[in-house]
Amino acid sequence: MQADLLSPAQLAHVRHLFHTHSPLVHCMTNDVVQTFTANVLLAIGASPAMVIDDDEAAQFAAVADALLINVGTLTRDRAQAMRAAVNSAYAQGKPWVLDPVAVGALTLRSDFCRELLALKPAAIRGNASEILALAGMSRGGRGVDTTDEAATALPAAQALARQWVTTVVVTGEADYITDGARTTRVTGGDPLMTRVVGTGCALSAVVAASLALPGDRLDNVAAACGMMKQAGSVATANGRGPGSFVAAFVDALYAEVQA
Amino acid sequence: MQADLLSPAQLAHVRHLFHTHSPLVHCMTNDVVQTFTANVLLAIGASPAMVIDDDEAAQFAAVADALLINVGTLTRDRAQAMRAAVNSAYAQGKPWVLDPVAVGALTLRSDFCRELLALKPAAIRGNASEILALAGMSRGGRGVDTTDEAATALPAAQALARQWVTTVVVTGEADYITDGARTTRVTGGDPLMTRVVGTGCALSAVVAASLALPGDRLDNVAAACGMMKQAGSVATANGRGPGSFVAAFVDALYAEVQA
Amino acid sequence: MQADLLSPAQLAHVRHLFHTHSPLVHCMTNDVVQTFTANVLLAIGASPAMVIDDDEAAQFAAVADALLINVGTLTRDRAQAMRAAVNSAYAQGKPWVLDPVAVGALTLRSDFCRELLALKPAAIRGNASEILALAGMSRGGRGVDTTDEAATALPAAQALARQWVTTVVVTGEADYITDGARTTRVTGGDPLMTRVVGTGCALSAVVAASLALPGDRLDNVAAACGMMKQAGSVATANGRGPGSFVAAFVDALYAEVQA
Repeated sequence: MQADLLSPAQLAHVRHLFHTHSPLVHCMTNDVVQTFTANVLLAIGASPAMVIDDDEAAQFAAVADALLINVGTLTRDRAQAMRAAVNSAYAQGKPWVLDPVAVGALTLRSDFCRELLALKPAAIRGNASEILALAGMSRGGRGVDTTDEAATALPAAQALARQWVTTVVVTGEADYITDGARTTRVTGGDPLMTRVVGTGCALSAVVAASLALPGDRLDNVAAACGMMKQAGSVATANGRGPGSFVAAFVDALYAEVQA
Repeated sequence: MQADLLSPAQLAHVRHLFHTHSPLVHCMTNDVVQTFTANVLLAIGASPAMVIDDDEAAQFAAVADALLINVGTLTRDRAQAMRAAVNSAYAQGKPWVLDPVAVGALTLRSDFCRELLALKPAAIRGNASEILALAGMSRGGRGVDTTDEAATALPAAQALARQWVTTVVVTGEADYITDGARTTRVTGGDPLMTRVVGTGCALSAVVAASLALPGDRLDNVAAACGMMKQAGSVATANGRGPGSFVAAFVDALYAEVQA
Repeated sequence: MQADLLSPAQLAHVRHLFHTHSPLVHCMTNDVVQTFTANVLLAIGASPAMVIDDDEAAQFAAVADALLINVGTLTRDRAQAMRAAVNSAYAQGKPWVLDPVAVGALTLRSDFCRELLALKPAAIRGNASEILALAGMSRGGRGVDTTDEAATALPAAQALARQWVTTVVVTGEADYITDGARTTRVTGGDPLMTRVVGTGCALSAVVAASLALPGDRLDNVAAACGMMKQAGSVATANGRGPGSFVAAFVDALYAEVQA
């Protein structure tokens, strides 16, 4: 496997872009991570908005800078509203991200995620199990925790990126960001992040925000991953466990962007 | 513009009233701010209860001391349940608050908020864009962030208050509370509060709680705004960014009421 | 009333079991406590998963180690999905917990909780008002706060446990865990816990996790209560009010299990 490393200059550049562009991110995400996702986006200088009614979601996806679709607590009604939003984003040429939480293990979301691929997500963010499942190479893990390492899913990520002409992020101890041709590896963070709900889901929202920035998409998405890894390291050092991690993480993201 | 200032004595008096009356507040609010809203109400000595089924909402609105309607993540089903609750509150003479999140920008909620005005909210709390939009004077801002200053929306707030015989709160760097005749201005707080999701939504819940207290309504609502501003200043001083703000804010509210 | 006390050895043993077994807990809980519940489960070493669509919930309940049903923000649609999940858990012999939030005061949830009893919850966790109401001995309190002491509801808890062959937990200043024959009393914690939303709901999730552990069910459930009481005492000492309590509580649970 050949992978570039994220450069500190790119990381600093993207932080600055978030601050100056303040992308408006339409989030259709799961029930568990709403607050954390919103606070993470606010901390980096973006503007979150959770709009979920079918008609309003279609209306809002057309004006927001990017859209996040996270299927963590999918229902048939929510799938219908997400479909309306994605169609609207697609029609307006707005970038959108798919976070295929627990895809492979459960039928409704598996069918739905596969259906959505045809509407060309600009990025897909998942753990190794989810990326393998979405690429049709494995049944996926046990709920949201992964039993594979990100590197093992890289070939699946690259295949998925080529097939759907998208950027795929596989997260784990290291993150891999690939468009099928180029791959960037992002290290850092801390295993404590897996003991805090929503760190992956919030990253997907930051990836969505990064799609609205000017410049190279792969580099911007990699920088989004790098920002979260770096804040995770700081928060682990500053906190006293997974409880205090949450505030320390948001504070670290905010401090990074203000600096 | 002529506006009174909130007196420290009134602020202290209302804090005491929250502690002694412990109003039961029925919250029908958006998905993003549920936990924070509940913890803010608990901190000031009130009792929050989130009841959302059509029939249960109607049943509960008749016994709670006040009702909060926040349209942040409205759907058609939720609008129906809110309608049932507001009708029940109205029939029983219970005060209710309208928080018209992002009204003007999106159709379903704009129509719904205008429909609800006929059911006589005891208070309306929004930012400048939202108050302008609800008064029919502007199309509203971009999502939940406002691009206007509260003072610019004061004439709209006063017109709205007179038309619907209600108390209108426009929040911003300074908050204005008006019944169309009298206006009170509340200063304090910190811009960091706009980087934390739910501070405005939680204020609407505290405004709802304040409607259940004895005494002058305008003064009580102004004191509710003052409590939040003051806790915001303390939390900004005690925290290390928008992450640690959340806990510091709730601690500050609790300390104020216990003092 | 005759009640055993929880032994420190049992508490230590169950902490170790959570760490080594990492039970996968399917949570169908209310909107207000999703994040806190997930973070509490992660802190003790369990794996939370919130799956709420009818079909997915039935599918997931069959593979998860335990299921939590909390009716705090019940709707008719959610009741239908919960029914599907409970039926699936029941068919597969998986243990499930009922948290009958505010039962007695509201009709939909009261009827639903009574209906679910026939599907044999392995445990029921509520405050005194809720346990009294579920046993048909009182109309219940005002919302989620209780006006009774746990001890006054112990006879109702014991009757309920015998009638439905289950373990009943009544929480309050002291918690009582009973199977109708034996009763264990768990002390500790702090009244500050009643000023933080979700401590009871999160306990119900930890009780669900404890049902998946090997050993004596009553002892395991009592240890789950003891872990939460102990973390509550630590968090009250380490925090500065109900705001900072949340992080300190999760940190304390994590530290206990890691130790």
